[in-house]
Amino acid sequence: MKHTVTFMPDNITTLVQQGDTLLSAAAKAGIYVHACCGGDGVCGKCKVHVKGTVHSDKSKLTQEEWDRGWRLACRSTVESDIEVTVPELTSKGGKTLKRRPKTTRTVSAKALDALIGKWNVDPPVSKLYLELPPPTLEDNIADMQRVIRAIRLHFPQDQHREPYYDLPCLLKYLPRTLREADWKVTLLLLRGRNQGDTFRIIDIEAGDTTAKLYGVAIDIGTTTCSGVLINLYTGEVLAESSGYNGQISFGEDVISRIIYAARPGGLKALQGKVVATINAIIEDICRQLIISPSDIAYMMAAGNTVMSHLLLGLDPKYLREAPYVPSVSEFPLTRAAELGIHAHPSTRLFLYPCVASYVGGDIVSGAHACQIAKSEKVSLFIDIGTNGEIVVGGKDWLVCAACSAGPAFEGGGIQYGMRASQGAIEKFQIHPQTLEPMLVTIGQSKPSGICGSGLIAIVAELLENHVIDQQGKFHHDLDTPRIREGSNGWEYVLAWEHTSMIGEDIVLTEVDIDNLMRAKGAMYAGYQTLLESVGLSFADLQQVILAGNFGAYLDLEQAICIGLLPDIDREQFYYLGNASMLGCQISMTDMNRFREREQVRQLMTNMELSENPQFMQHYMAALFLPHTDMRLFPTVGKKLADSLA
Amino acid sequence: MKHTVTFMPDNITTLVQQGDTLLSAAAKAGIYVHACCGGDGVCGKCKVHVKGTVHSDKSKLTQEEWDRGWRLACRSTVESDIEVTVPELTSKGGKTLKRRPKTTRTVSAKALDALIGKWNVDPPVSKLYLELPPPTLEDNIADMQRVIRAIRLHFPQDQHREPYYDLPCLLKYLPRTLREADWKVTLLLLRGRNQGDTFRIIDIEAGDTTAKLYGVAIDIGTTTCSGVLINLYTGEVLAESSGYNGQISFGEDVISRIIYAARPGGLKALQGKVVATINAIIEDICRQLIISPSDIAYMMAAGNTVMSHLLLGLDPKYLREAPYVPSVSEFPLTRAAELGIHAHPSTRLFLYPCVASYVGGDIVSGAHACQIAKSEKVSLFIDIGTNGEIVVGGKDWLVCAACSAGPAFEGGGIQYGMRASQGAIEKFQIHPQTLEPMLVTIGQSKPSGICGSGLIAIVAELLENHVIDQQGKFHHDLDTPRIREGSNGWEYVLAWEHTSMIGEDIVLTEVDIDNLMRAKGAMYAGYQTLLESVGLSFADLQQVILAGNFGAYLDLEQAICIGLLPDIDREQFYYLGNASMLGCQISMTDMNRFREREQVRQLMTNMELSENPQFMQHYMAALFLPHTDMRLFPTVGKKLADSLA
Repeated sequence: MKHTVTFMPDNITTLVQQGDTLLSAAAKAGIYVHACCGGDGVCGKCKVHVKGTVHSDKSKLTQEEWDRGWRLACRSTVESDIEVTVPELTSKGGKTLKRRPKTTRTVSAKALDALIGKWNVDPPVSKLYLELPPPTLEDNIADMQRVIRAIRLHFPQDQHREPYYDLPCLLKYLPRTLREADWKVTLLLLRGRNQGDTFRIIDIEAGDTTAKLYGVAIDIGTTTCSGVLINLYTGEVLAESSGYNGQISFGEDVISRIIYAARPGGLKALQGKVVATINAIIEDICRQLIISPSDIAYMMAAGNTVMSHLLLGLDPKYLREAPYVPSVSEFPLTRAAELGIHAHPSTRLFLYPCVASYVGGDIVSGAHACQIAKSEKVSLFIDIGTNGEIVVGGKDWLVCAACSAGPAFEGGGIQYGMRASQGAIEKFQIHPQTLEPMLVTIGQSKPSGICGSGLIAIVAELLENHVIDQQGKFHHDLDTPRIREGSNGWEYVLAWEHTSMIGEDIVLTEVDIDNLMRAKGAMYAGYQTLLESVGLSFADLQQVILAGNFGAYLDLEQAICIGLLPDIDREQFYYLGNASMLGCQISMTDMNRFREREQVRQLMTNMELSENPQFMQHYMAALFLPHTDMRLFPTVGKKLADSLA
Repeated sequence: MKHTVTFMPDNITTLVQQGDTLLSAAAKAGIYVHACCGGDGVCGKCKVHVKGTVHSDKSKLTQEEWDRGWRLACRSTVESDIEVTVPELTSKGGKTLKRRPKTTRTVSAKALDALIGKWNVDPPVSKLYLELPPPTLEDNIADMQRVIRAIRLHFPQDQHREPYYDLPCLLKYLPRTLREADWKVTLLLLRGRNQGDTFRIIDIEAGDTTAKLYGVAIDIGTTTCSGVLINLYTGEVLAESSGYNGQISFGEDVISRIIYAARPGGLKALQGKVVATINAIIEDICRQLIISPSDIAYMMAAGNTVMSHLLLGLDPKYLREAPYVPSVSEFPLTRAAELGIHAHPSTRLFLYPCVASYVGGDIVSGAHACQIAKSEKVSLFIDIGTNGEIVVGGKDWLVCAACSAGPAFEGGGIQYGMRASQGAIEKFQIHPQTLEPMLVTIGQSKPSGICGSGLIAIVAELLENHVIDQQGKFHHDLDTPRIREGSNGWEYVLAWEHTSMIGEDIVLTEVDIDNLMRAKGAMYAGYQTLLESVGLSFADLQQVILAGNFGAYLDLEQAICIGLLPDIDREQFYYLGNASMLGCQISMTDMNRFREREQVRQLMTNMELSENPQFMQHYMAALFLPHTDMRLFPTVGKKLADSLA
C-alpha cells in the first residue's frame, strides 16, 4: 500500500510504501533533513512536523514537542497520506535550502515490457503422461522400447526418429517404476538443441505428475548468488532465495579466485563452495514450496566467465593471462548432479555462454533479456561493478567490452568503504550552508561505512555544493569542522565518533574520491571507446540500460553528476535490475527465446580495452568531475554554475 | 606350416599343422587308434609305424621297436609329410575296422568371405590433426571455439552445424594441451548415430597422433570373456586375450546370476566382476602392444541380455519372470570409464542391442556378422549352449528363439562332466569289435572327465556301434567289461581308475545320455518350431551357420548322428566361430555395416518357446537318438543299418 507524503515548505510530493520512514521518504524526494546518525534515532536532529498518521515513538522528544506534532523523521513510519514540514535550519544566511527533486526514472512495468518483449510459455522440458499396455508373452519387448513405441504413437510426425534417453540413471529405475505404477507413468522430455532435433527422455515418474513442472534460474555472482523457482507452465516465480557466494572466503574478486584456483586443490575447493551455495539456495526454495530438489526439471544459470569456469571445474588460469582466452564460451549442457548440485541425476543445467574472459554469461543473459540484439534502437547496456561490462549496438551489430573499474563501486579501496550491508551509508545529502550531512544507512542503523551507491551520492553532493572541486580536491576555506586534514590528507567527516557504529570518525578522503574517479572514469572511457569504435557518439544513443543490482540502487542524477553515466535525456535510461537472472527466467520459460541466445552471443564482438590507446586517452580525460570536456556534460555544467549563483 | 599324414592301410590322408600329434591327426582323420590314457603316453597302447620325420621319444618302446620305426601316436609330433601304419588289433573276428572318414566341413576363407561379405575400413571414430593459429588480443576467442572454427574450415559442408563435445573431461585439459602442444593437436572425433548427424569431439591429444587409432572388440560370455585389439585404420587384429568371466564365483549360469543380483549389493558385485574381467583383458592386450588403455578410441561389446544388463548395472530381475521383459533392448552408447572400465574418460562403449531376454546382443552381433538379414538364402543360425539360440530367415524376415537346453553341452548334469579344459575327453572313437575306446583329451593329459563336444562324440560312437540303442539305453549282452551296472544304472567305462587323472573310473551313464538327449532335443525342437512358424521345413534351408566356440569344436557327423543338427546336405553347414566377436570387429571397423545392426535387430521377431505347445510336442518327439521320426534323419538311418550289416 502506498501513501503520498508532501514535504513543506517546498510542496514536493513523493509516493512511498506504507511503513517506510519519513527519513527515507525525504531522501527519496531529495529533501534535506539533518540526520547524522544514519537513521538510528540517536542524534535526535531529524525533527519534522507531521500532519496525518505516522507510527512513531517519543524518544528524543519532549512531551510538548510530541503534542504539537513533532516527530523524529527516522523513527516515524508512514501510515497514511501525510504532510511533513521540515524546519529551516539555523544558518548564517537564514535562507531556505533549495530542493533538488529527483529525476531518476524507474522504468514502469509497461516500459519494461516494451524493453524485454513478450515471451511465450514453451519451456525446454515438457511432460508426457502415458498409459502403456502391460507386456504379455506375445508382446514382450523391452521396457524402454515399450515406452518409445508409445511416444511414437503420440508424436506420429517423429516416427522415423529414435528419441535419446539417459543411461544409466533412467534405465536403472525404469522397470520398477513401470510395474509399481501399473504402467501409468509420466515422462520428462528434454528438447533438442536445434529446432527439429529429436528430444531426450530424461526422467520417468509413477502416475500422472504432469500438473507440476518446475525450473530454477540461478544468477551466480562473484559476491552473491540468487535463485528463483519458476512454474514452467506459467512462467510465474514461485519462490526465491539468495546468499553470499561461498567462494568469498577464498578471495573477494575474480582475480583472487583465479589465483586461488592455481593452488593445489584450489579449483576443486572453489567449485565445491559455489556448488554448496547453489545447494543452499535450492534447498531454501524447495522448503518454501515443500517440494524436493529432485522435482526440479531444469536449471538455467548465468555468471561471469570466471564464475562459469569455476562452477564447471575448468581451470580459469588463462582468463587472466594475455590474450585472455576462456576454455570455452558455449558451455555444453551439463547434468547438475554431476557438478555436485542437489538435483535429480537427469536434471540439466544450462549455463549462459560467455563472450570473452571478462564479458561473461551474465552479460549475454542480460543483453538477451532486454532484446537489444533485436532492437532498431542503438542501445548502451551497462553493468557497473569492479568489472564493468558494456555492450553497445542494436540488431545488426553489438560490440562489448569489460573495463576494470577497480573495487570502488563495491566499497573497495575506500578508507571506510564497505559492502552494501547494515550500517552502510547509501543516501547522502548535505546542507548547502551548514555543510552538515543527512545520512541514511542500510537498515537505518548508526553508520559504519560507505557502500558504492553511498560513495557516488556523497561525491555528487560534495561536488554540487562546491565542497570539492572538479579535480576532487576539497576547498580548504569552508567554514565547517567537518573538512579537515587527516592522516591521509584532506577529508570530510561523514559521522563523528559518537554517532558512528564503529567508535571512530567516518570520513571520506581525497584518496577515496580519486579512487572513485578512476572507477567511473574507466566506465565512461569504456562507453566512449566502444561508441567510437563503431563511429558513433553519445548523441546517437537511444536507450541506456542499467543492469545489475548496483545499477538498481544508483541515483541517476548523482551518477551523471560525477560522470559515471552519460549526460543525455533521462527518458532514455532504464533500470533492468538483475538482468542476468531475468535472461535465465525468460530462456527457461520460452524455448524460442532460448534458442536466440546464440545469435546474441555471436553478434557480440569483444574489444580488449586494457591495452587500447584510445581507451587510455579517454580514461585520462575522464579523471575529472564529471569530465575534462564539459561539453559532454551540459546539464551538470549548468547545475554547477547555477548552484554557485 | 602344414603336412600331409597318410594313414595306412586305409590310405586316408589328412592335413595337419606341424607339431600336431599323430593321435590328433588320427582323430581328425577318423582313424581308430587304441589310446585309453587320453594321450598322456602312459598306457603305451597307441603304437603306430611311421615312415618320415616325426619328433618323438622312446617311452614305452623297446629299442627294437624304436629302430623298426614304431612310435607312440600320442608322443609323436608331425614334422614332415609322413605315412603312418596303424596295426590291426587282435580281435575275435580278426577283421579290419572300417574307417569312417570325417565329412565335417570347415569353411574355407573364401566361403567365409562369401558369408560375411566385404567390409570397408570406415570406423565410428576418426582423428583430425590441426595446426591452430595461437590466440592474440585481436583474436582471443575461447579455446574450444578456436578448435571448432578450425574444424569448420576442414569440413566446410558442415558450416552450419555445431559439433558436440564432452564435458567435463575434454574441457578440463583442453587449454593446457593446446598450449603445451604449441597449438598443434589431434582431435578424436566420434561420428553421430545417424548418417548426416554432426560428430562429437571426444578427445584431444598433443601433436600429431593420427598414425594410431585403436579399437577393442569384446565378447562377454557367461563363462568366458574375450577381447581383441584392432587397428581401426586397417581392421587388422593386433592382439587378443581372454579369461573366465569373474561372475562365475557367483553362479555358473545366467539364472544363478540373476538370483545373485537380487541380493543386497549383488548387482553391484556382479557388475564389478565383469568389469574387472574386461579390465584384465584390456590390460593384457595393451601390454602386448605397449600402449595404454587410454589409447583405445572405441570399444564394442556383445553379450547375452543378462550379461549386457549386468555390465550396465541394470537389474536383470524381470528377464527371468514371465513375460520375460528386458529393461532395454537398444543399449545407449555409454562411456566405458563410467562403468568402471579402464579407459579414457571419453571412450565410448557400444553394446550390441538385444532382441529379448534370452536372445541377446551376442546373437544379434553374430547374425549381423554373417549377413543373413541381407541374404537371399533361407538360413538357420545356431548358437549351441545352455541357452541355445536360434535364428531362422533371410533378408525379408527373421524369427528367433532361445531354448533352454540345460547345461549338458557344458558338461553340466553329467556325472563326469566338466568344462572344456585340461583333461577333458573331447574326441572319442570305439573299436567296433573290442569296444575299446580311443580317447583324446584337451592338453593330451590323462582323462579327468567329459566336456560337451566329447559327450556328443561318445554318444554318437556308442550309437553307431550299437553299444546303446536309439533310446539311449545300453545293450546289456555285449562282451566287454566296460559295460556294467553301476550305482546310477548301466554305464560304459571310458577310462579305468589307473589311466584316469582323478584316481577313479570315468564312466558315461544312461542318465548322462538322457540329459544329452534332452539338451539336443530342445535345440532340434527349437529349429522345427521356428521353421514351422513361418511355414517352412528343413528342406527349405539353404545354409546352417554354427556360431559360438562350442560350434567350432562340434564334429558335424556326430552332431547329426545324435540329432543335434538336422540331417541335410553337409555342404550347407558353416562354422562361424565366435560370431559375436566377429560382429563387433566388423561393426567397429565399418560404420556402414555398423549402422545396419538396427535393421538386423528390428527384423528379428522373437518367439517364446517355453510355453509353446508346438515346441513341447517337437521336444517329446526328439527325445530319441537321433529322433523318433527317422524320415528326418535319412543318412543316420542308413548308417545305423549299414553298420549292423
